[in-house]
Amino acid sequence: MPSSVLYHGADYNPEQWLDRPDILRRDIEMMRLAHVNVVSLGIFSWSMLEPEEGEFHFEWMEAIIDRLWAAGIRVDLATPSGARPAWMAYRYEEVRRVNADRTRQLYGMRHNHCYTSPVYREKVKIINQQLARRFGHHPAVMMWHLSNEYGGECHCPLCQRAFQEWLQRKYGTLDHLNRAWNTRFWSHTYTDFSQIESPAPHGEGAMHGLALDWRRFVSHQTIDFMKWERDCIREILPGAKVTVNMMYRFNFINYYDMAKEIDLASWDNYPTWHKPEETVESTALDTAMMHDLIYSLKRRPFWLMESTPSATNWQPVSKMKKPGVQLMSSLQAIAHGSDSVLYFQWRQSPGASEKFHGAVVAHDGRADNRVFVETCAVGRALEDLAAVAGTQKPRQAAIVMDWENKWALEEAQGPRNCGLGYWDEIMLHYAALARAGISIDFVNEDSDLSGYRLIVAPMLYMLREDFAAKLRAFVKGGGTLVFTYWGGVVNETDLCWLGDAPHGLVDVLGVRRAEIDGMFDVETRRCVAVTPDMPAVAHGSVLCEVAALEGAVPLMLYDEDYFAGAPSVTVNRYGEGRAYYLATRFEEDFYGPFYGQVCAGLLSSVWPGELPAGVLATRRDRYLFLQNTASSPVRVGGDTIDKYGTAVYLEEESGLRRIF
Amino acid sequence: MPSSVLYHGADYNPEQWLDRPDILRRDIEMMRLAHVNVVSLGIFSWSMLEPEEGEFHFEWMEAIIDRLWAAGIRVDLATPSGARPAWMAYRYEEVRRVNADRTRQLYGMRHNHCYTSPVYREKVKIINQQLARRFGHHPAVMMWHLSNEYGGECHCPLCQRAFQEWLQRKYGTLDHLNRAWNTRFWSHTYTDFSQIESPAPHGEGAMHGLALDWRRFVSHQTIDFMKWERDCIREILPGAKVTVNMMYRFNFINYYDMAKEIDLASWDNYPTWHKPEETVESTALDTAMMHDLIYSLKRRPFWLMESTPSATNWQPVSKMKKPGVQLMSSLQAIAHGSDSVLYFQWRQSPGASEKFHGAVVAHDGRADNRVFVETCAVGRALEDLAAVAGTQKPRQAAIVMDWENKWALEEAQGPRNCGLGYWDEIMLHYAALARAGISIDFVNEDSDLSGYRLIVAPMLYMLREDFAAKLRAFVKGGGTLVFTYWGGVVNETDLCWLGDAPHGLVDVLGVRRAEIDGMFDVETRRCVAVTPDMPAVAHGSVLCEVAALEGAVPLMLYDEDYFAGAPSVTVNRYGEGRAYYLATRFEEDFYGPFYGQVCAGLLSSVWPGELPAGVLATRRDRYLFLQNTASSPVRVGGDTIDKYGTAVYLEEESGLRRIF
Amino acid sequence: MPSSVLYHGADYNPEQWLDRPDILRRDIEMMRLAHVNVVSLGIFSWSMLEPEEGEFHFEWMEAIIDRLWAAGIRVDLATPSGARPAWMAYRYEEVRRVNADRTRQLYGMRHNHCYTSPVYREKVKIINQQLARRFGHHPAVMMWHLSNEYGGECHCPLCQRAFQEWLQRKYGTLDHLNRAWNTRFWSHTYTDFSQIESPAPHGEGAMHGLALDWRRFVSHQTIDFMKWERDCIREILPGAKVTVNMMYRFNFINYYDMAKEIDLASWDNYPTWHKPEETVESTALDTAMMHDLIYSLKRRPFWLMESTPSATNWQPVSKMKKPGVQLMSSLQAIAHGSDSVLYFQWRQSPGASEKFHGAVVAHDGRADNRVFVETCAVGRALEDLAAVAGTQKPRQAAIVMDWENKWALEEAQGPRNCGLGYWDEIMLHYAALARAGISIDFVNEDSDLSGYRLIVAPMLYMLREDFAAKLRAFVKGGGTLVFTYWGGVVNETDLCWLGDAPHGLVDVLGVRRAEIDGMFDVETRRCVAVTPDMPAVAHGSVLCEVAALEGAVPLMLYDEDYFAGAPSVTVNRYGEGRAYYLATRFEEDFYGPFYGQVCAGLLSSVWPGELPAGVLATRRDRYLFLQNTASSPVRVGGDTIDKYGTAVYLEEESGLRRIF
Repeated sequence: MPSSVLYHGADYNPEQWLDRPDILRRDIEMMRLAHVNVVSLGIFSWSMLEPEEGEFHFEWMEAIIDRLWAAGIRVDLATPSGARPAWMAYRYEEVRRVNADRTRQLYGMRHNHCYTSPVYREKVKIINQQLARRFGHHPAVMMWHLSNEYGGECHCPLCQRAFQEWLQRKYGTLDHLNRAWNTRFWSHTYTDFSQIESPAPHGEGAMHGLALDWRRFVSHQTIDFMKWERDCIREILPGAKVTVNMMYRFNFINYYDMAKEIDLASWDNYPTWHKPEETVESTALDTAMMHDLIYSLKRRPFWLMESTPSATNWQPVSKMKKPGVQLMSSLQAIAHGSDSVLYFQWRQSPGASEKFHGAVVAHDGRADNRVFVETCAVGRALEDLAAVAGTQKPRQAAIVMDWENKWALEEAQGPRNCGLGYWDEIMLHYAALARAGISIDFVNEDSDLSGYRLIVAPMLYMLREDFAAKLRAFVKGGGTLVFTYWGGVVNETDLCWLGDAPHGLVDVLGVRRAEIDGMFDVETRRCVAVTPDMPAVAHGSVLCEVAALEGAVPLMLYDEDYFAGAPSVTVNRYGEGRAYYLATRFEEDFYGPFYGQVCAGLLSSVWPGELPAGVLATRRDRYLFLQNTASSPVRVGGDTIDKYGTAVYLEEESGLRRIF
Repeated sequence: MPSSVLYHGADYNPEQWLDRPDILRRDIEMMRLAHVNVVSLGIFSWSMLEPEEGEFHFEWMEAIIDRLWAAGIRVDLATPSGARPAWMAYRYEEVRRVNADRTRQLYGMRHNHCYTSPVYREKVKIINQQLARRFGHHPAVMMWHLSNEYGGECHCPLCQRAFQEWLQRKYGTLDHLNRAWNTRFWSHTYTDFSQIESPAPHGEGAMHGLALDWRRFVSHQTIDFMKWERDCIREILPGAKVTVNMMYRFNFINYYDMAKEIDLASWDNYPTWHKPEETVESTALDTAMMHDLIYSLKRRPFWLMESTPSATNWQPVSKMKKPGVQLMSSLQAIAHGSDSVLYFQWRQSPGASEKFHGAVVAHDGRADNRVFVETCAVGRALEDLAAVAGTQKPRQAAIVMDWENKWALEEAQGPRNCGLGYWDEIMLHYAALARAGISIDFVNEDSDLSGYRLIVAPMLYMLREDFAAKLRAFVKGGGTLVFTYWGGVVNETDLCWLGDAPHGLVDVLGVRRAEIDGMFDVETRRCVAVTPDMPAVAHGSVLCEVAALEGAVPLMLYDEDYFAGAPSVTVNRYGEGRAYYLATRFEEDFYGPFYGQVCAGLLSSVWPGELPAGVLATRRDRYLFLQNTASSPVRVGGDTIDKYGTAVYLEEESGLRRIF
Repeated sequence: MPSSVLYHGADYNPEQWLDRPDILRRDIEMMRLAHVNVVSLGIFSWSMLEPEEGEFHFEWMEAIIDRLWAAGIRVDLATPSGARPAWMAYRYEEVRRVNADRTRQLYGMRHNHCYTSPVYREKVKIINQQLARRFGHHPAVMMWHLSNEYGGECHCPLCQRAFQEWLQRKYGTLDHLNRAWNTRFWSHTYTDFSQIESPAPHGEGAMHGLALDWRRFVSHQTIDFMKWERDCIREILPGAKVTVNMMYRFNFINYYDMAKEIDLASWDNYPTWHKPEETVESTALDTAMMHDLIYSLKRRPFWLMESTPSATNWQPVSKMKKPGVQLMSSLQAIAHGSDSVLYFQWRQSPGASEKFHGAVVAHDGRADNRVFVETCAVGRALEDLAAVAGTQKPRQAAIVMDWENKWALEEAQGPRNCGLGYWDEIMLHYAALARAGISIDFVNEDSDLSGYRLIVAPMLYMLREDFAAKLRAFVKGGGTLVFTYWGGVVNETDLCWLGDAPHGLVDVLGVRRAEIDGMFDVETRRCVAVTPDMPAVAHGSVLCEVAALEGAVPLMLYDEDYFAGAPSVTVNRYGEGRAYYLATRFEEDFYGPFYGQVCAGLLSSVWPGELPAGVLATRRDRYLFLQNTASSPVRVGGDTIDKYGTAVYLEEESGLRRIF
């Protein structure tokens, strides 16, 4: 992959059109019009490649790849495991998943194979290696697209056995497991590993440690399957580059772990722009956060592997991107670290489940279709910005977003079971920092914290001893920590830390948690500032903790309910650093001023000047991106940026030069 | 059936009262008071007729029929297949349905036999033919009531096999089927007919062509079972008259197809009058639409087979009909083409599931009960209006309501999946025309369009090539067409038409569809009129299409969002006719003025004068009906019509004469 | 049990802490601080007592009991059947319940054993008798806690057979059963008892008589299991005292029947205090009603067996009790007839499902924790009030709350299926009487009515002939009856009474029911007073009945809809008494004035003076309790009672003396 190319392309599913050579020819013509230089190929081709067990047909695919290569278009070649042929589902029952209710799925849909099944692994090995042999050395093939959107879980007997073995490896003895899960409560002591089954609606649903380990196992087993696919390819093609396409706020896989096993992170981005309840800026911050998370997984440029140039077809309501949004959202990916913009799919299907999903070429096939015209503009922009490819983002602040913590806090039953909103909490911190032009990474409890000035650890319910020590050292060494309510509650097996809380950080934070009160959705608790740097009034929600001061300085106090007068925001000096504590969740407006104080003298915006409302700034090496999410033009630093417009600057010795 | 009789009666279930001869005697007395001249008998009698397999008891039924006949009351004799005996459900598992989740139902409820089961067909044949032999020549028996409210679906292995065979007959080869469903998408190519299974929550749910064909198969198989029942009767009684009782907006059966196989259409009408969110006029329009649809099935008088004289007992809240509504709603059926008013049931059950369903005789058994008194008034009115029996309605306008189109658009995933409201859309057009006193038929894509001046084709998503040609010829020959958004999208296997849309009608309509934007429930888009004939302002919702003009004249334009200025209503001259296009769904108020313009010079009201608000007019040959749905009396053409009152006029040489 | 002790304690689950002797020691120290004198032990200990089949370990429990006894703490020893060991669930499938959908549960959760299973009964017998032998004579063991929160239902083949046998015993012949359930409707006649199965989502769901008898059977079988447990204990320890812990508004068991089989009634009280939609007084009335119901079961002091000193962890939101509420709610139990205040649990679990449930000792283990401090205050108060133990409540008014009636009216489909709110209706009557300082009992149709001046029978849909006669005699003899809409509708098998309604009471009430109209949630019907004693205006809801006067005097009339002018409240003199009829459900404000008139000259408050708003008064023998639920102090009878405060007076010859 030459570093001076930004990739533009789409999922290409030509097997739907093999009887229409006119359309296949027209595809290449229109790809050229759209400045397409890569396609993902073969994702749903298994039935065409192996129509009967052991009978392979690659000739049609070869013709397609040759034709693409002749047109200068590269191929990200998929392993076809995301959708298996019907014959296999009927011949080998074990490849079909079993739901949590222990019902085996019938044939249908996709992304629903058992990750444990030896039969499925064997069938995948055969087809993957056939593909590798046939196409691995084709000059067009630049990368391997492992399966498609890995996810889900299977509760079949094979997976149960694998889970039990995984537990045995992890805990060694049943006694260790029983202690780790506190199974003596409700008399649930296991006396044989075979007694442990995955959570089920008609079985175990209240053993938090089990639920947490099941989530870990599912993630582990999915990654294990992915590694199997990867290694099948590499057995034939040592050093083959691989990627997987990840998903928005996806719950089933710990992507930090998965990213370690691939060469390039990529993801599929399907926001609903123009939802009535949300501004364009809010939607943009939502996608920005995911871009930054995916970038953080490897701290390297990633790919935007799928997006729609217009609308989806699977949401309750699918809205068209308004004029300009296709370009803005595509360049947003680049601004946040992507080296590509790809779509699903190149041409709208004539039938079946996704026939109304937006595509570069619509059913009308017209080149004057607005969606196609705007896609061509994206293609041109990516060529203009090719020099951005491969550049890095600066290291300033990091937010702790930890999948294991998320699983633990969501599986537990506690003071509020109608929704804790882990992602919502993270977004409040992210949005305030992003609007301030701070470059944000995401880390988990395995991460190295060095190089950051600010660590934000929202709702870090599951706090491991080693990560508490890292935070402690980070603050001691001069870092600034923001820690919150519902943090430091349990250990890595969801056992509550006994004694004072937040565990291991009472002296760092200078506060001790005394009580936690759950809030109904309609409830808030007024807080007032003790210092002029804080908002005069703000309102706690979700959980209101009552903290006892153990040395910290209160910044805001509760002003109502029985805990009026107790601190809701505090700061503490510890070692060379500072540690803030937020005892509750505030409304969005609070976090701007709060982080204004936190960052003062600590971190500054990547954009040297003022940022008007709605303008978001990011940086990759010497390239600065400004995007105007507002619905009218704005003036920034002497330039005008249109509604939904993007400006790109190159930092030179003489100052900033606008290059787009 | 002499044409000079309007029938009045009820479902009669005397098997519940065989140990109460006093009550059976009182039944006949009260039937005479209520001017009852027909009952439906035997619907739930199978357990009494055949208490053990092969052991038949008809003597009790004979006594009932004789007694009815002696009182001058005729019998619509039911085949008892709607509720089978317990012994059969336990002895022959296959007669019990299998749900979509592949669970076989236990014994219980009713209307839940497998339509494919050879055992069930055989058992039905035996009982039906016994009944036919025993009672077919009794002078009281005027008609056969085939089963009861056919419906539902079965997913058992027998039905799966029948579905696969039906597909094989339809498509011939798997290759044709795979193309028709575009199975190459998601790699779903079938290599054996046995791989095709009905949609399931844990199986296939996204193959639109499969889902559509499953709906067709279910309808086909249900009708096939009905034909089996009919033919069993006719083997014994050649020429026996049969009917089936249909249901409100029923989704499982294509009633156009079913109606071809029976002598008389009938239906069961259970609106909730006096719902807080609806006016009495709205409820009346809702039932009027169904009456007109049932009339249209055979374009002949039908029967109102069931209704409640008071309230139901199965809705979330069951409300009593207020005084006068029982007469108004009963005569509404007559006004729209029914030759009968029947109720479910004659006497309230003492126990079990429907014991609180309204009936002519209540648990109190009193003849001074308001419900009974009002029912007697209906009986007298039907005698007064006997001459109306058998008369026809005029042919003016037709609305396309096509079950296959409905199934296709509801199974597809597209720009709005939270509800497209096919019936709601149809109702908007129906209500405007009905309030204007236009006589309305319903047609489907198989229908002959000759004789109509106006065809309204709302949301005709699935547009067959041959029907597009019919519409084209209709307009060319001078007809007026109203066509809408989300029409002309797919062919008969739910494959998208490629190229310009609406398929086959771009020149007829003078517009081409460029984009479709989905609207959330809370969203509308303002439109403004270009011509004074249209409402100055109206609001689009559900789906807002952006159309490119290809010769049409715009009548209204969008006035907001990125498509401001694009046409939302157009008209085009084509051949001798005109074609209107509605690019979105408007609020109810729009359609009155719109159809005012459409009908000007084309169609006129069946009532010669002005119709006050709330008064609905219909015509059967020379009889004109006016019904006042408003809650106060109105003056029409010199007469006063009471709140909830009905006036009937006979058109004579000298003018209209009020006869009721 | 010495009558001069009020018990204070908690569920104690030390098996979670056996490897922490420091914590077990600290438990005893803190129990002394909290004035604990009893604990419930062994509820979830089965896995520790019998870790493998037939292998018993009692030594750890013995050490615990000895240590408790040494500290003066008594033990309410549990049978461990509420949570069985994993080994048993896997070795004997039949012990696991089968859900209504006929799926057998996997291992997990608790309270889910089959009550019919002979294996489970045998295993329970063995462990119960081992416990009885080992600990039954220990001086600490004062009572047996049978299992834990019995409840739920099982649909396994063993239970189906037991149900069929129960039906056979009850009805003798199928003919009787078929008549009782009116099975001829829908042709559901059973010809073999084996055809009768429990209601199922995929089976029978509309046979009301079956549904009602299933509820009765489930209650019977649960009680039968409880008796088995009790008798196993008593075989070893004749005369052993037993209790069961009941639950709030629990639907599965007829607690009147269950209470006959135990020595002491007890219950687990888990309200959500401080819900935003409810005042503290409303929550207090809700718990008061349950206290009075539990007291009524045996008309003797009961135990509060479980409560939380702070918050729960299983509700959508769990709120902390504000300061003072722990004492108020604890003393409320005493005020309404409890001789104890116990909590679940003593010490918060470190892990698993209830680790965040409130407990006396929190995860922080601190004695200065607010919850612990307030619990100590409860302990001191119970010592101060020890003389109250064993005292009785006066007999004034009784409300008919009948489980069989509840089951019947909820299973039936009638004029309103979206919720009839039986408990809501009862609460309206209860709250008005409770605020007036009337001492309230609950009775069912089996109860003796003597000694009461007032009987309130709300929504007595299922009215047995013998209870109608009791009510008749009660009024005739001078009692006052309040009877309502939807009363006197069906007999004990849910067969409708034929003829005039309310069955058997038309002359007593002086009214006859003519019609019933269902109301949507958004609907009400205005009523106006005929007499100045009634509220000038009130509004009917839920069901509005139209009654014909048969001698009664109307007190309020409907003022709108077609039944305007019909009576909605009436009173009738019958014999020496009076009978009121309420034809609809009114808003809460109606019932205060209404019962003001009903009670005038009939009953007076247990508190001799005026009761300020929010102050609730109860009486036990010569002890009077006043509790202030308002959020500010009030003045009553010369004294001040704090916000959430309690005052206790002893009635002496000289007058009332405040003793707390």
